[in-house]
Amino acid sequence: MATSKKSKSAIVAQLLFQVPHQTNKFCNLYFAALNSFSYLLIIIIFKEIQSEFFPFIIEDQVVGYTHNRFASHLRKYDDVFIYSENNGGRFGSHLKLNSKLKTADERTRVVGEVIKCLGEEDLIPGIRNELYPVTSTFGSPIFFSLERAAAPYFGIKAYGVHMNGYVEKDGQKFLWIGKRTQVKPTYPGMLDHLVAGGLPHGIACGENIIKECEEEAGIPRSISNRARPVGAVSYMDINGFSYKRDVLFCYDLKLPEDFVPKNQDGEVESFQLIPVAHVANVIRRTEFFKPNCSLVIIDFLFRHGYICPEYFGYLDLLQSLRSGDCS
Amino acid sequence: MATSKKSKSAIVAQLLFQVPHQTNKFCNLYFAALNSFSYLLIIIIFKEIQSEFFPFIIEDQVVGYTHNRFASHLRKYDDVFIYSENNGGRFGSHLKLNSKLKTADERTRVVGEVIKCLGEEDLIPGIRNELYPVTSTFGSPIFFSLERAAAPYFGIKAYGVHMNGYVEKDGQKFLWIGKRTQVKPTYPGMLDHLVAGGLPHGIACGENIIKECEEEAGIPRSISNRARPVGAVSYMDINGFSYKRDVLFCYDLKLPEDFVPKNQDGEVESFQLIPVAHVANVIRRTEFFKPNCSLVIIDFLFRHGYICPEYFGYLDLLQSLRSGDCS
Repeated sequence: MATSKKSKSAIVAQLLFQVPHQTNKFCNLYFAALNSFSYLLIIIIFKEIQSEFFPFIIEDQVVGYTHNRFASHLRKYDDVFIYSENNGGRFGSHLKLNSKLKTADERTRVVGEVIKCLGEEDLIPGIRNELYPVTSTFGSPIFFSLERAAAPYFGIKAYGVHMNGYVEKDGQKFLWIGKRTQVKPTYPGMLDHLVAGGLPHGIACGENIIKECEEEAGIPRSISNRARPVGAVSYMDINGFSYKRDVLFCYDLKLPEDFVPKNQDGEVESFQLIPVAHVANVIRRTEFFKPNCSLVIIDFLFRHGYICPEYFGYLDLLQSLRSGDCS
Repeated sequence: MATSKKSKSAIVAQLLFQVPHQTNKFCNLYFAALNSFSYLLIIIIFKEIQSEFFPFIIEDQVVGYTHNRFASHLRKYDDVFIYSENNGGRFGSHLKLNSKLKTADERTRVVGEVIKCLGEEDLIPGIRNELYPVTSTFGSPIFFSLERAAAPYFGIKAYGVHMNGYVEKDGQKFLWIGKRTQVKPTYPGMLDHLVAGGLPHGIACGENIIKECEEEAGIPRSISNRARPVGAVSYMDINGFSYKRDVLFCYDLKLPEDFVPKNQDGEVESFQLIPVAHVANVIRRTEFFKPNCSLVIIDFLFRHGYICPEYFGYLDLLQSLRSGDCS
């Protein structure tokens, strides 16, 4: 639980950090606006933590961020990774790949060898032997591919799809909410969306949401193909040497009243249909939800009129939700 | 038409400008993404124009921006306005009120006298004798009140409500679109939302949308009270000495299939019910819409799934739409 609490704080704090040069001006307003959603803001701590990371640059593009102490483990691999001191350039101190490594295949191979060593030293636990594309923005050319378990240690951007599945009865809306099993390695027992998952390389968002609908909730394609894209949210989440930078494509799916989801992959303990206003209160008053789900649900609450301009802090909360780096 | 074209370009260019320090990186992507909506980007020109304005500061808060040549007309009123050269402080060169003016009432009175003189000199045309609140952010304390016609000359933030009124028939959505009369002083003959208006001081957004629904489209309260708030967009629009900074609270209203709007205030020539996909094409290929309506409709297109993550430039367009200063 400590980890999840920390992550949640970090996520919200990051939202604030997307408003550059205006931190002081916004602090009080954010406290006012976000306290109502019971977030613990650890802005100063987060800023200190953030300063421990420096950019990972490829071909003059920022593709990630690396912790300075993690980077010290890379110094002996100087035929692969080069650490550049701050020489007044636009990136300051930064990590880059050895300029001899020109092609994506070459980079993938030699970086992979380093990651294998770091895995054996237990510096990067849980190697999955699954490659993840390294780009600067969504859809832009791939610089190389990196072991998935290593991606957060290099602050590589990741993309996912999250879906709010809802039902409308007599004008009242209900959200289908999942409870993660206790044996899930991440966020065990916490509340979750009906359907959510990472976006594997080469699969379109729309096709991925249909696949996840089937696997996670037993929703047949005849229903899931009505899921509609409604935007995206993004957040950062720092935990030790790990720096997650996620962009979540958000979907809404209005389900038939009589549909009952059935988890197929054993990762969900149960599903429950809950009035949207009640879900809003759970997010406001508790930390039961997996933190990134809270963001996507708050986006749903805005779009479906459950948060009104008359509420104090409306524009501040909206701006903090939407000012993340969605690229 | 020249004015409206310029405004449209400026609005889009401003969206870009909200991504600080990354202009070069984003330029090509934005061109790619936004060209598909047929916007003419005049980024460099806009940047030059923007540099002709400097901040208007009250109690250490930026409340607006004033053109340097307009400000020169204020110098003779140095018991009211003080011009400060760039002395290395955080605001650079800026305009402020004489520090003797302590209360809102006092500021309102003496600034009003200056505006009256400027009106007589025709430097501020169209004085309405209607006061507008000057604040730094929505809902924050009012520093003083300013003649409405003068507000853009001081770059004061303004707030409005815009509503997409739509109908759903056999699973297909249609938007009610208005055509402004040819005698409207601004954007005559252009396409418009079903309902839109400025937010007068002291009226809540929800109450204002109900009032505008009645006045602009003859929608009775029994229907308009179902209008739901769905977020906000913001933009800047520079035209000569005028610097508009608007935040629009967005509403959706699903109307009964048989409802036909009737304009009550004589400002709309006609209304037409148009399939949403067709409206999207009009925005993409023409400049028929009043520019700020295009932004609110693009927001509708995102939220209702008419723009998909599979489209090239999805995240860039979404980010440019949502990165304005919504405060």
